[in-house]
Amino acid sequence: MKNEINIGLLGFGTVGSGVAKIMHGHQQDLQHKLGVQVSIKKVLVKDITKSRDTELASEIFTNNLEEVLNDPSIDLIIEVMGGTNGARDAIERALLAGKGVVTANKDVMAEYGQELLQLADEMKCDLFYEASVGGGIPLIRTMEDGLASDRISALTGIVNGTTNFILTKMKHENMTYEDALAEATRLGFAEADPSADVDGIDAARKMVILASLAFSTEVQLDDVFVRGLKEIQNGDLELADGFGYTVKLAGSAEKDEDGIAVAVEPVLFPNSHPLASVNNEYNAVYIYGDAVGETMLYGPGAGSLPTATSVTADIVAACRNLLLGMNGKRLHSPQHERKVKSDGKRFARYFHRILVKDEVGVLTKLTAIYSNHGASLATVVQHPDKKESGAELVFITHRMSRQQHLDVMEELNQTPEVLEVLSHYRVEGEK
Amino acid sequence: MKNEINIGLLGFGTVGSGVAKIMHGHQQDLQHKLGVQVSIKKVLVKDITKSRDTELASEIFTNNLEEVLNDPSIDLIIEVMGGTNGARDAIERALLAGKGVVTANKDVMAEYGQELLQLADEMKCDLFYEASVGGGIPLIRTMEDGLASDRISALTGIVNGTTNFILTKMKHENMTYEDALAEATRLGFAEADPSADVDGIDAARKMVILASLAFSTEVQLDDVFVRGLKEIQNGDLELADGFGYTVKLAGSAEKDEDGIAVAVEPVLFPNSHPLASVNNEYNAVYIYGDAVGETMLYGPGAGSLPTATSVTADIVAACRNLLLGMNGKRLHSPQHERKVKSDGKRFARYFHRILVKDEVGVLTKLTAIYSNHGASLATVVQHPDKKESGAELVFITHRMSRQQHLDVMEELNQTPEVLEVLSHYRVEGEK
Repeated sequence: MKNEINIGLLGFGTVGSGVAKIMHGHQQDLQHKLGVQVSIKKVLVKDITKSRDTELASEIFTNNLEEVLNDPSIDLIIEVMGGTNGARDAIERALLAGKGVVTANKDVMAEYGQELLQLADEMKCDLFYEASVGGGIPLIRTMEDGLASDRISALTGIVNGTTNFILTKMKHENMTYEDALAEATRLGFAEADPSADVDGIDAARKMVILASLAFSTEVQLDDVFVRGLKEIQNGDLELADGFGYTVKLAGSAEKDEDGIAVAVEPVLFPNSHPLASVNNEYNAVYIYGDAVGETMLYGPGAGSLPTATSVTADIVAACRNLLLGMNGKRLHSPQHERKVKSDGKRFARYFHRILVKDEVGVLTKLTAIYSNHGASLATVVQHPDKKESGAELVFITHRMSRQQHLDVMEELNQTPEVLEVLSHYRVEGEK
Repeated sequence: MKNEINIGLLGFGTVGSGVAKIMHGHQQDLQHKLGVQVSIKKVLVKDITKSRDTELASEIFTNNLEEVLNDPSIDLIIEVMGGTNGARDAIERALLAGKGVVTANKDVMAEYGQELLQLADEMKCDLFYEASVGGGIPLIRTMEDGLASDRISALTGIVNGTTNFILTKMKHENMTYEDALAEATRLGFAEADPSADVDGIDAARKMVILASLAFSTEVQLDDVFVRGLKEIQNGDLELADGFGYTVKLAGSAEKDEDGIAVAVEPVLFPNSHPLASVNNEYNAVYIYGDAVGETMLYGPGAGSLPTATSVTADIVAACRNLLLGMNGKRLHSPQHERKVKSDGKRFARYFHRILVKDEVGVLTKLTAIYSNHGASLATVVQHPDKKESGAELVFITHRMSRQQHLDVMEELNQTPEVLEVLSHYRVEGEK
């Protein structure tokens, strides 16, 4: 049995420095848990001359990836450098060198996860990626182990902290989208270029990772139907609230005999739904298991120490496996073939907000469009404040297929009395 | 490597039959996960002649414990028979026979958990107990693995579904305590004798299990400060709601350099706190980690299939360990010595509701009592509805020690102007 484990850390940014801090601060606990010393042997950084606030000796910093990968005393590589191609390459080479890998990289895992996991299987190495989704929330582990015997039929989650922060500020502090985004940027919750967050791409990557695992199948980014925050119009949040709903940018994934369906879009949650009260930068994922029923995991979706906690949990698991010689023993090959559900088989309730000409007979004409497409309406409301531009109608439908929704949208857009379909959302309802 | 694993199931009630059902329904998934066949070889029941709705062959049912424990082909014992002494004895004997054990028994784990875990360590067997707390919620696993590198400083949770169901019905449907309890009994959420639930004993047992694990120390049932639902007076729920709080029967455990403090009591949660919106029979545990910050796990706290899901997750983990020959490799000896915090070092905000004589100067006299004990007040409200019996005052304090709270209570009770201290609660506030 090994009597020490050496780690090569790739990257020393927010997460990397957090990992070093936790490992230093909790050395005694880690030793109690593992029975051996775990040390960071080398750290890859871009600039080795930069002064850093760390307990680590300056001589272990290097700007040469080879030096880390070729060090035979290093057992485990922690990839927290970010980016896609360089990181993917480093992970691949580490696995080929027979080293275990822990990564926090959602971009790499969403795009190359399947092939890297296969490579890890072949090389009999561990590849753990808990921190790639949901920051400090132990999501991957719960789906792999806690619900190991259950069949997950669906999951719905708030997996992007930036957009959830923005929507919370807009709803609870009446901020405009622009002000809320500026506040998120000021507090470090949004990046300089926030488009991956606000357009839903970041959330879509995380949903690819979660859905692949939940359904044991390959899911690609292209399989994800994505709508971002821009789809939300002025007044939508208040309007939804008036009907008892909260708007969240949510990911959803479901699977049945027709295949899988994965989406990221603004969704209306009933205010009594636990996801409706997940606020600010927090993330949460709601899991529907055949046997367990409904469970939810909630926590910080990002941040240095929360994310580093997940990375360090993976390090502990990987070290334990190394010590017991059982690294790479859990196979990752997907159990099911990839099969994406057609729009015709994805069912949901929908919320439509429509600006129409203020004329007699418009309501009758519009409700006829719904019934012609076999869609039935649960709620029909004419907005009491008449606008100069016309009248506003809100329809909330019963469950219908996404194809019916698209067909109704198309016909509404071709109807002369319809000035504009202002917004439309999926409504989270009974499963 | 073994090519099959045989299980002995002790008990075939709600949970046991759920385990059999899940294992039968998910056979293919289990085989994919483990690579070998896992079968239930024997089932211990009281009455073998009873007709049962199950896929299991009738000849594997036995009423003889020896037959299960002495079967050398059985690798793993699943204890879901309930009760304390018989179950403890069976677990002990299974471990002594070198068999792994999975149990859902909170009574046994709360009272004998430490000694049984030590025995499991000595015998190099696994002893898993996920289902003993929080039904289908993977709490134990998350604390052991997901937050493996973190130091848990506190946890607060709703760990009893019966009382949460009763409080939800009382708050949201204005039911009386008696009616809500009757409804819980009718729906099978409360047992014929509900005292262990409503008096907080069931929750206290679960807090012993969670606190022992979270703080890696021995916690005994006697260490838990317990107040049950009877402490809640008529009108308290509405009154608390008026101040923006929801009353929950909550467990809490905290640890610092002064030791641990564990309690189960009715607590006031601000309505914006995620635990305030955990309703009906659902459970949730809020964990404060040094690094991760705040995370919450939510799900069904009881029920046949949710609890069986946790049992089966443990079975999968135990089988994996057996297959890899790493059973019993995770040591459970507590890292820290048992040290219980004195009341003087447990700080919280308090809510006091007091019936006083309706006389001039009473408020001044009472506020003086608080300040004489060094307690400062955040809110002082005189209830607008005067009662025949006197006037009602509500005080919400700033943080003070439990000893200060007890001293104030004592002096209030001795003050002639105080007719009765109607109720008092800890208020969950900023950590």
